[in-house]
Amino acid sequence: MAAPLGRVRLALDAMGGDHGATEVVPGGIAWALENPTDELILVGDELVILQIAGGKLPANARIVHGPEVIGMDEHPAQALRERKGASILVATNLVREGEADAVVTAGHTGAGMAAAVLRLGRLPGVDRPALAVQFLLREKPLVLLDVGANPDATPENLYQYAHMGSIFSEHVLGVSNPRVALLSIGEEKGKGDQRIQKATELLDLADLNFTGNVEGRHLAADEADVVVCDAVLGNVSIKLVEGVTTTITDMFRQEFRRLPFGPIAAILMRPAIARIRAKLDYERIGGAILLGVKGSVVITHGRARKRMVNFACSTAARAVREGVSGRIASALAAAPSVAADGLPSGPAPA
Amino acid sequence: MAAPLGRVRLALDAMGGDHGATEVVPGGIAWALENPTDELILVGDELVILQIAGGKLPANARIVHGPEVIGMDEHPAQALRERKGASILVATNLVREGEADAVVTAGHTGAGMAAAVLRLGRLPGVDRPALAVQFLLREKPLVLLDVGANPDATPENLYQYAHMGSIFSEHVLGVSNPRVALLSIGEEKGKGDQRIQKATELLDLADLNFTGNVEGRHLAADEADVVVCDAVLGNVSIKLVEGVTTTITDMFRQEFRRLPFGPIAAILMRPAIARIRAKLDYERIGGAILLGVKGSVVITHGRARKRMVNFACSTAARAVREGVSGRIASALAAAPSVAADGLPSGPAPA
Repeated sequence: MAAPLGRVRLALDAMGGDHGATEVVPGGIAWALENPTDELILVGDELVILQIAGGKLPANARIVHGPEVIGMDEHPAQALRERKGASILVATNLVREGEADAVVTAGHTGAGMAAAVLRLGRLPGVDRPALAVQFLLREKPLVLLDVGANPDATPENLYQYAHMGSIFSEHVLGVSNPRVALLSIGEEKGKGDQRIQKATELLDLADLNFTGNVEGRHLAADEADVVVCDAVLGNVSIKLVEGVTTTITDMFRQEFRRLPFGPIAAILMRPAIARIRAKLDYERIGGAILLGVKGSVVITHGRARKRMVNFACSTAARAVREGVSGRIASALAAAPSVAADGLPSGPAPA
Repeated sequence: MAAPLGRVRLALDAMGGDHGATEVVPGGIAWALENPTDELILVGDELVILQIAGGKLPANARIVHGPEVIGMDEHPAQALRERKGASILVATNLVREGEADAVVTAGHTGAGMAAAVLRLGRLPGVDRPALAVQFLLREKPLVLLDVGANPDATPENLYQYAHMGSIFSEHVLGVSNPRVALLSIGEEKGKGDQRIQKATELLDLADLNFTGNVEGRHLAADEADVVVCDAVLGNVSIKLVEGVTTTITDMFRQEFRRLPFGPIAAILMRPAIARIRAKLDYERIGGAILLGVKGSVVITHGRARKRMVNFACSTAARAVREGVSGRIASALAAAPSVAADGLPSGPAPA
């Protein structure tokens, strides 16, 4: 059942995340109120959701019962097999059955990804989906992928990620002709390990704005719009940025407190600190998007509160409206297809 | 020819680095003056060195002529074959011939590593050397390796790095019973790609304080003393920290300048800024050390000035005095040896 043109039906896993329904439900409702022509489907324990919502929902919101929660210590695939009532599974099934266009969850990342892969399936041309996030350390948006979907990426996987990231950058983030680069050990094109070298050969044949390599420091600079890497490298990178950012801002905070006029300085510096906080505000990116599956799946932070859940819903809706999945499938169908031995098996573009 | 007990003879590549002899020679001389019982051998263009030194050298310093420089754009192995008078090659040969114990260079990293591997050779039990650096984001020293020596590490390489890093941490940085961890995608032991999973199996058999995985954010926390990874992951990590640190400190600087009382604030905050700068002062780590070769080789930053060159000499001398190379060879001789298929071929420790 297709939705009316331009109307997005969003299945929100209301039970996931560290704060559970208490934060997720109000975040979803805020999004529904701001987007009255879209539809919100809250998936979770009906009584709990109604209680948190104060007994009534916006006109464009409804509840689908799915009361079970997958714990952070559970094995994703096994939990999905055993818990047919898990909110993330019920939400994903709504997309599978054509009742919804997108899933948003703050729950177990592995369970969210497994549900998407098992229930929605991969897009044609995609061997492995990738988890993509936006980096915040500069004005222009930068998207990094894969940050955790597929631990043993092949050069062919990186080649596909490059297409998926480029489409997300152009159509969701609004970057025209996005520069695509591989994250590696040196700036010179092709420098890196064998996987990166082979991916470079493949990407040289792709119909993308492929610019070669970027180094770690370039993630904070304006060198590329889409940065492609394997899951270990991507995941370590985003968590390292999180750690370094926290450590350095804590250093400033502590050192200023130690000044003799500390309390006065704290008041005087408040506007500057607020501007820095706004720049590093990761809540506004909404979360990570799983690219390469049949449907829009946004996995937000386990610690996400109302505001971030709202942003996650917006990102998922934008991906639906811009037809990201369809564009990925078309792009990979048109791209020179790549055989498992890493050599292009189709004709290269002129 | 062995040196008198405890006396370190250090061959300093006087010509390398962005600033060349102008910074390297005074840095080396400062070290020689502070360590009068050690010996400094300045390797480079004799006339240039003498001119920069003001015509005279400390009693414990001498010059060995090696006037050629390998450019940053040259291919390391080829340049070493063609330039017999390259300062880094002449300096490394002094260690090979027993005239010196350690090499320090601010020049081409690839050339420094290639000279070490080709002229000094690998220690018994070491398949690949690794480049190790200290991380500065916390009080207790943390060593990360490999950050750039060997792009396609095997699980067996990671196993050897763990031993090398543990010895460096204990004997050069003074950490007792260092906690060794693998850098990976999740905290649970064994989580990660196949290389990390296999390295985990091997390290479980090692006589090391192996604690499992750390994530990217833990590099800024007190979770491990030695963090082991492949070169791409290590190199991206150190350069990402460099980029993020610069970006965030610049953000603070710019935002404070925008405050209405900016110039006054700048003066008031000076002591706090100075303390933060001291904490993030990467010059004091001296540079990266190449572990696993027969001799001490420290490769400092291309941008190193006098002070950092002095610290690099101190690190190299400490590694010699503590017998790091010998300890690595002994540790790997005693460790269950690991076959290329990743299975231990020797008896596991009880």
